[in-house]
Amino acid sequence: MPWRITKSYNQLKISFIGAGNVSWHLAQTLENAGHNVAEVFSRNVKNAEELTKYLYDAKVQRDLNFADSQAKVFFLCVTDDSMLEVAKQLVLPEDSMLIHTSGSKSLAELDELLRLNSDVTIKTGVFYPLQTFTKNYKVNFAEIPICIESEEEDVEKVLINLGQDISDITYLINSEERRVLHVAAVFACNFTNHLWAVAQEIVEDNELEFDLLKPLINETFRKAMSAENIFKAQTGPARRGDNKIINQHLLFLKQQPDYQQIYRVLSEGILKKK
Amino acid sequence: MPWRITKSYNQLKISFIGAGNVSWHLAQTLENAGHNVAEVFSRNVKNAEELTKYLYDAKVQRDLNFADSQAKVFFLCVTDDSMLEVAKQLVLPEDSMLIHTSGSKSLAELDELLRLNSDVTIKTGVFYPLQTFTKNYKVNFAEIPICIESEEEDVEKVLINLGQDISDITYLINSEERRVLHVAAVFACNFTNHLWAVAQEIVEDNELEFDLLKPLINETFRKAMSAENIFKAQTGPARRGDNKIINQHLLFLKQQPDYQQIYRVLSEGILKKK
Repeated sequence: MPWRITKSYNQLKISFIGAGNVSWHLAQTLENAGHNVAEVFSRNVKNAEELTKYLYDAKVQRDLNFADSQAKVFFLCVTDDSMLEVAKQLVLPEDSMLIHTSGSKSLAELDELLRLNSDVTIKTGVFYPLQTFTKNYKVNFAEIPICIESEEEDVEKVLINLGQDISDITYLINSEERRVLHVAAVFACNFTNHLWAVAQEIVEDNELEFDLLKPLINETFRKAMSAENIFKAQTGPARRGDNKIINQHLLFLKQQPDYQQIYRVLSEGILKKK
Repeated sequence: MPWRITKSYNQLKISFIGAGNVSWHLAQTLENAGHNVAEVFSRNVKNAEELTKYLYDAKVQRDLNFADSQAKVFFLCVTDDSMLEVAKQLVLPEDSMLIHTSGSKSLAELDELLRLNSDVTIKTGVFYPLQTFTKNYKVNFAEIPICIESEEEDVEKVLINLGQDISDITYLINSEERRVLHVAAVFACNFTNHLWAVAQEIVEDNELEFDLLKPLINETFRKAMSAENIFKAQTGPARRGDNKIINQHLLFLKQQPDYQQIYRVLSEGILKKK
């Protein structure tokens, strides 16, 4: 990969703990922005080896003792569940910055974890790219909001610079606000995905093609995303208060009580907003 | 509007009962495809007048007595609730075709309604464009699936021709299949809209911008629409079985029991699909 210097005035040495989807994209993007990845650690060493192939001169780190690392910033990109275990074994150089990239962990929780074993001063922060990542699908970081938090002025400054190096949208978001975004994202993304999946199953179980619904889904999506108040873009039987149709649909779903309950709860929600 | 002859070999005379969103788009599109709208009726005469301005030589029809009409095909584009009332007063020429455009009325229900007052032979059919329409927003009919149903061979043939004149996607769909599509559309469109609206409210109530979530929503949408099995594209706390986060989110929503219930029901749905 060719080395190019972009808008970053201060090249930072950065190490990654974890080599999953977030590390995969973030490490390469930060190097493309002019920074340098020093080490990559992964519980599964093959993942670390794979990622370093795409980096300039990063080394595979085989344990969690980074005492001799030249890196200043350590990105902790592991699942929330493994953070505790990692923190127990992690050794970082004095005055380094440990940054997690999770939407659901608060900064205080990270500090708590560090207090478990650390006898050196480590500053903490959050660098949360508000996007879902897939390893082999290219993402454009410029369009991804980066949510930054730290209680240390110098860490915040470093993270803002890193954020601005790779994205056009960098926000200071505290842990409480990050939780709000995460709850909202569950509604707007996880739950909508489930509803599309249920719709696909209903259609395909009846030997129809899901493609038939796609123009309608596209248009609904387009309208909602351009609406100032999305409740006002609502259509359909519940919005019209059409109980006859609602009851027909509930009857249709009688073999699938789970789907029937989703139908009932969401129709009630829409009816109440009328 | 300039008159152009396109691929329709047989120009049909068509009248519209109702001048709402569906009539608005369908009447103009059929004329652009070479057909001719004879009359437009609307309970609110102003709507009929407005639509005829965009048509070649269509007349405003002031009552539901079409006995002297030259039209062969009558599109019944009124709300499901007003169909009964319209049917009671409707007088059509012998051997005309009455076609409804609703996703939720069966063909049998339309026949039932006609039996109420009709002493002439009227053939029935369904011509259901699977799309949501907004009056002043242009739609491209070529991409809209047209779902056609009739028990009369000649009606079916006429509707297939009309469908193919305006759309690249014409399907023969019976009333049972149309109900399946309608139930699925409620999940895939109405309910997802509600969830986006809830997400927007949660974010804005906390003084954050909904725009922050849009890149994530876009990507979720893109992934789901290209997935062969959308359940497999699922991510998030329920997919991971992360009860700690789920409970934190339920606690966060404690002031909004309706949203809490939606969160609970959909998380359970996702957990069961794991």
